[in-house]
Amino acid sequence: MDAWFTEHHQAHHGHGELIGGRLVSGFESPVRAERVRAAFEAAALGAVRSPADHGLSPILDVHDAGYVGFLQRAWRDWQALGHQHPALGMIWHAGLGRPRVLPRHIEGQLGFYSLDAGCAIVAGTWEAAYWSAQCALSATQAILQGAGSALAICRPPGHHATADAMGGYCYLNNAAIAAQALRARFARVGIVDVDYHHGNGTQAIFWRRDDVFFTSLHADPHDDYPYFSGHADERGDGPGTGHTLNLPLPAGTQAPAWLAALEQALDATVQRGCEAVVVSLGVDTFERDPISKFKLTGDDYLEIGRRLRRLVVPMLFVFEGGYATDEVGANAVSVLVGYERG
Amino acid sequence: MDAWFTEHHQAHHGHGELIGGRLVSGFESPVRAERVRAAFEAAALGAVRSPADHGLSPILDVHDAGYVGFLQRAWRDWQALGHQHPALGMIWHAGLGRPRVLPRHIEGQLGFYSLDAGCAIVAGTWEAAYWSAQCALSATQAILQGAGSALAICRPPGHHATADAMGGYCYLNNAAIAAQALRARFARVGIVDVDYHHGNGTQAIFWRRDDVFFTSLHADPHDDYPYFSGHADERGDGPGTGHTLNLPLPAGTQAPAWLAALEQALDATVQRGCEAVVVSLGVDTFERDPISKFKLTGDDYLEIGRRLRRLVVPMLFVFEGGYATDEVGANAVSVLVGYERG
Repeated sequence: MDAWFTEHHQAHHGHGELIGGRLVSGFESPVRAERVRAAFEAAALGAVRSPADHGLSPILDVHDAGYVGFLQRAWRDWQALGHQHPALGMIWHAGLGRPRVLPRHIEGQLGFYSLDAGCAIVAGTWEAAYWSAQCALSATQAILQGAGSALAICRPPGHHATADAMGGYCYLNNAAIAAQALRARFARVGIVDVDYHHGNGTQAIFWRRDDVFFTSLHADPHDDYPYFSGHADERGDGPGTGHTLNLPLPAGTQAPAWLAALEQALDATVQRGCEAVVVSLGVDTFERDPISKFKLTGDDYLEIGRRLRRLVVPMLFVFEGGYATDEVGANAVSVLVGYERG
Repeated sequence: MDAWFTEHHQAHHGHGELIGGRLVSGFESPVRAERVRAAFEAAALGAVRSPADHGLSPILDVHDAGYVGFLQRAWRDWQALGHQHPALGMIWHAGLGRPRVLPRHIEGQLGFYSLDAGCAIVAGTWEAAYWSAQCALSATQAILQGAGSALAICRPPGHHATADAMGGYCYLNNAAIAAQALRARFARVGIVDVDYHHGNGTQAIFWRRDDVFFTSLHADPHDDYPYFSGHADERGDGPGTGHTLNLPLPAGTQAPAWLAALEQALDATVQRGCEAVVVSLGVDTFERDPISKFKLTGDDYLEIGRRLRRLVVPMLFVFEGGYATDEVGANAVSVLVGYERG
């Protein structure tokens, strides 16, 4: 299994987030991706490659052009106000329905295009997000060309970004962009999201589609971010009805219950006839993750990889969350080791 | 003209807000109401009275019971997490539509019940908001009993609060609660919102009703808060169609253009046959207001009061915004002096 990685991710740094009523520096930090790369190299699973530039087109197959344009120019517009600190939304269109009119002012646009105050924009955010998506696309290319598995060491992560809004540290939805690109060869693609948080962005993108099956194991949205989606009764809509499967789990969940839910997710993925699978690989399910409440241990990640082997289809791993920086590399790579070596 | 005021407003203090990408102490500060009371006393327009307790019932005539319950217990639930600093929403249901399920976690509830990150909750927020509404209700009572005019020195302000969400320093919509209570005697009530910002909460509350006419002069939402409502083509819906009139104005607006728009608002209020009028009295249109971009001068507030005299119906003034603390009292009371003395 080869991995795709680029130093461009480091351009997204120095951002803050509003959490617990305080503005703090981002839990989603550059060291995370570096640790995954280092652990991947140490495990000698394959080569670490630089992504090719696949351009904007496959990104625009998933994301709204207005939103992508906003991401490209947001920092410049923010700086034009005299600001040097991170741009952060503060006014949302919550409860008023999707607004009809995009405001001219960058402060209004930040709210228009975001879901929460966890997504600051700094000078290098677009560069990092663009190349994070390119890592996913290059790994996808390997799968399309016949590789059995591949890893995209994406940063910033992607699964909270909808077609037209950033949220939860995510700007471009790398997993969704990859799944869409895989459709060029595979009639049905599955996305198995094992991140601690519900993949609300990915769900929204494929909500009404029957060609991409989305399943997610995550913290019960009653108790944790993103709060407003991820309930078990959310199953898709229109032609997509039944092509979304949510498995919310309570705080304190340990490996046995978590793995039982994974089996449900894998059963459904097999049943739907998915010919290729994207794994949204968050490891914030870890017992010492600073913002999460599940209780998986280091050894459990090997077992997760072993369980994923029974999906005998090409598998693309896309790095998502995981904020215990000392263990994030080892835990993410343990999944891959379990998958490759059993 | 008598005024209603209570020291309870001081319980709402020490709150912060997210503005311009930074978490700062609130522009909406206790001194604001004190300055209005002092200026009112100095002008010798009438007595300053303490509000009676009209209870929750008239508040619930306008606001959702779940939301009111949340406001009552939010600080306690937030404290239970070990927090002593202000509670602030950070995750909204932006763009996903109104969520079906109220999260159990207070962080989720803060987002569920708010529109932006300008509405922190501290220990005394409910006490202050409750008594702010009681000031409006006591002043309303005076009008219902025959007074020609009355002032409610409300703090926190109200016009950004919808039936079920706080926003823009506002928790309970004092003007809407007063207008609703005035309906007990007056078949048609007008609300003239002269605050710098669009009264999005008030608009939303009466959006589909033909018995309360809402008109607002404010900063073009393209350029300023609340960004997602207040465009000229928003005119109400269903039976309320034509019973909302928005007059957005550009940054830098001075008295001549502002007063011309006021004439339009007053013409429409007369045309609709309003038998009593609530004035949402914000004075953040002032040239030195720290967060606003209109250019009214101190003398202009006298003229605003004079212009309002031509509505020969009972008039209730409800204090809203105004953040130039040195002048906020004089400017607000100048409107009343102009109204009372011509």
